[in-house]
Amino acid sequence: MMIYADRLKPLWIIAISIFVLGSCSSAAVGEQRPPNMVIIFADDLGYGDLGCYGHPTIRTPQIDGMAAAGMKFTQFYAVSSVCTPSRAALLTGRYPIRSGMVGNRRGVLLADSTLGLPPEEITIATALKGQGYATACIGKWHLGHRPAYLPTRHGFDYYYGIPYSNDMVPTPLMRNEEVIEEPAVQETLTARYTDEAIQFIERSKDRPFFLYFAHTFPHVPLFASPRFKDQSRRGSYGDVVEELDWSVGQVLRCLSELGLAENTLVCFTSDNGPWLQYELKGGSSGLLHEGKMTTWEGGMRVPAVAWWPGKIKPGEVNLTVANTMDLFSTALSLAGVDLPTDRVIDGRDLSPVLFGREELEDQPFFYYRNAILSAVRKGPWKMYLITVDSLGGQAGKLIEHNPPLLYHLEHDPSETFNVSAAHPEVLAALHKEIAEHQANLVPGTFMLDERETQ
Amino acid sequence: MMIYADRLKPLWIIAISIFVLGSCSSAAVGEQRPPNMVIIFADDLGYGDLGCYGHPTIRTPQIDGMAAAGMKFTQFYAVSSVCTPSRAALLTGRYPIRSGMVGNRRGVLLADSTLGLPPEEITIATALKGQGYATACIGKWHLGHRPAYLPTRHGFDYYYGIPYSNDMVPTPLMRNEEVIEEPAVQETLTARYTDEAIQFIERSKDRPFFLYFAHTFPHVPLFASPRFKDQSRRGSYGDVVEELDWSVGQVLRCLSELGLAENTLVCFTSDNGPWLQYELKGGSSGLLHEGKMTTWEGGMRVPAVAWWPGKIKPGEVNLTVANTMDLFSTALSLAGVDLPTDRVIDGRDLSPVLFGREELEDQPFFYYRNAILSAVRKGPWKMYLITVDSLGGQAGKLIEHNPPLLYHLEHDPSETFNVSAAHPEVLAALHKEIAEHQANLVPGTFMLDERETQ
Repeated sequence: MMIYADRLKPLWIIAISIFVLGSCSSAAVGEQRPPNMVIIFADDLGYGDLGCYGHPTIRTPQIDGMAAAGMKFTQFYAVSSVCTPSRAALLTGRYPIRSGMVGNRRGVLLADSTLGLPPEEITIATALKGQGYATACIGKWHLGHRPAYLPTRHGFDYYYGIPYSNDMVPTPLMRNEEVIEEPAVQETLTARYTDEAIQFIERSKDRPFFLYFAHTFPHVPLFASPRFKDQSRRGSYGDVVEELDWSVGQVLRCLSELGLAENTLVCFTSDNGPWLQYELKGGSSGLLHEGKMTTWEGGMRVPAVAWWPGKIKPGEVNLTVANTMDLFSTALSLAGVDLPTDRVIDGRDLSPVLFGREELEDQPFFYYRNAILSAVRKGPWKMYLITVDSLGGQAGKLIEHNPPLLYHLEHDPSETFNVSAAHPEVLAALHKEIAEHQANLVPGTFMLDERETQ
Repeated sequence: MMIYADRLKPLWIIAISIFVLGSCSSAAVGEQRPPNMVIIFADDLGYGDLGCYGHPTIRTPQIDGMAAAGMKFTQFYAVSSVCTPSRAALLTGRYPIRSGMVGNRRGVLLADSTLGLPPEEITIATALKGQGYATACIGKWHLGHRPAYLPTRHGFDYYYGIPYSNDMVPTPLMRNEEVIEEPAVQETLTARYTDEAIQFIERSKDRPFFLYFAHTFPHVPLFASPRFKDQSRRGSYGDVVEELDWSVGQVLRCLSELGLAENTLVCFTSDNGPWLQYELKGGSSGLLHEGKMTTWEGGMRVPAVAWWPGKIKPGEVNLTVANTMDLFSTALSLAGVDLPTDRVIDGRDLSPVLFGREELEDQPFFYYRNAILSAVRKGPWKMYLITVDSLGGQAGKLIEHNPPLLYHLEHDPSETFNVSAAHPEVLAALHKEIAEHQANLVPGTFMLDERETQ
């Protein structure tokens, strides 16, 4: 009904009507079809590295525009401060300690690792594939590069990318389960990933699809296409982020041109904070303290933008404490897939927040460093039992705090003023949250330390 | 011609046409009338304290919307890190050392000061009043509270506000040259200022006008109206900034409703960085280092947003190194007033930047702390001869650097990596800029230290 009427209306009225009525119908898409989902995941991009999060000299007009047309989260977390566990959490909706994607000796999978995400874990791709979705993983995987652990064994119809970090040697480029280039030519990786993402969307446009687009950059070493190299006022780190921004724009444009925008949720976020030890080759956590490899806010709080024209109200800034595990539960909810009942799922469905229907209740968020619980946040309060820095003389050392440190993150986002002495009741409540979490926790077999016998 | 045609077009086409054609005509405003100018000046608001500059928990939808509809500057400076000289620079277009609005013993005017901005200084108000503008100063003055120095003696037809900072006793509220309340009831100051600003715009709408709207907050002590008190997730500092944001929205709305938006340039900025010594009662400089009372970036780089529907392209982020003295030259240029030729004017006309016509050439910017030259920036490079901190054991001490410190502010906005050893040629060039500046400098009589004989 709306479709015919819309032809008589100017565009801005259509835009408003679509939002007000909450309709996600369009000429290209039937009413009953579940929505598409695209997750764009940057690697080591800091909280402060985008224009809309306050960076003064990195230009990100596409992501800024995505935020202006969608929802910007300001208290959104990656679930680990390093790659492998963070990616496991996003794809499974579970703390990595449950899936075993942590280690005592290693924090991430390395090029000589032989294990990966256990086959019995359910990824977003597995769940949505079962509902008839086309699924693709484009970019960095880092959840096991032996055949048994590749994306194609975890629900993805198609894979194109490098299987782990771009600073690990050799750096193969793979299509599905085959190495097609080694070492991968990194200068053109972002451009080639983008081509692949667009091709996947184009060939999947007549069915629901899930695209997990995990960029290799701005993880070091930094490489940009000739078109972006030496163009940013921020130097080589800026070049790389600005190319990534371009890529985001290409994906949104493709969705819009194919008439899919109003039936597609796109989420942009990062796997952890900036790698500060790389100085100007690493990013910035803005006003947050510290970066990658730490559980300070700068290590785990990340930019996060959600875009769905007609469904998400434009220009909203949302302060919900959320995290990447929520994307698992949100994806399944939107696809009409029930959550698994045979395991603990830590994520929550964010659709009530995205669609402005209601706020979620406060729930504790646990900051792990590898297998060790470091801190917990509930509401505005964050309590540290253990801290670890990435910079300075104590870098890498676990420092226990008894009494714990306590910060009011909404008053003091930079974690400058420890107020634990003034709030014993908050400490007690947070200790209780930890006790409940640990009482029910069944850690998985750790997959990062161990190697199969060759 | 456009006016008639526009009646047949939907609104979004008008909006685009107005921008493309660069017209600032509207039914309410004649072609030949010079534009109105509104400067909204916050007090001690930090670079990181607005949503569009990355603050996670202070909600500023009105200023964010102003930036989305206008131009956001990311390398814009207040000309001092404290109140009095910063305000003198904005209103006169001159470094405060030239007008004498500096001191050796005092950095700002205090309640017992008897001097102020010298009568021979030309303010934006003086210059525009001569061109037939209605002029008003609403809010904090802090350029002399004895009658001879009040806004009414410096080109403003009307004054309503407190004559200096809200932490100085007594705190009188004045209308023109009369004290109307003492001490001023601070809870309702922002609301009353806003009413006064709107009343001035309404009664001036048939002639060109200049409104200098200098808020008292978020300078400590913090006070908010009942409607805003205890509402912000950021605590009392957030309450105050969120009320200020509301006030900005009221001004823009008033201009739009009166049909004046397309003939009015509105600039929002701050007089210096956040007062970090006040901890959570002070603001945040985001990713910048340090705050008020220092010449580190956090002390002097401030948020700056320019809005002029139909003239400034929406959503632009601009990296021009600019400062509040440029508002003087821009205002005179737009009003068709020649710059004074009997004195040095340090500001530059920003209209080519605002209207997207051209970029300005790099020009040195000098960071003074009171009467002492601390640092210089040209292009991306900032060289310090002297630093001073506001926090830590060395707070307030001038520390000389020989060799100087050198930072590449576009690569390293947080001033983390001193690279002076690697760039002797940059140091030499910046030393030359300082020498040229100082060779031509005629300091004014210092007005901040001295007191008339009672």
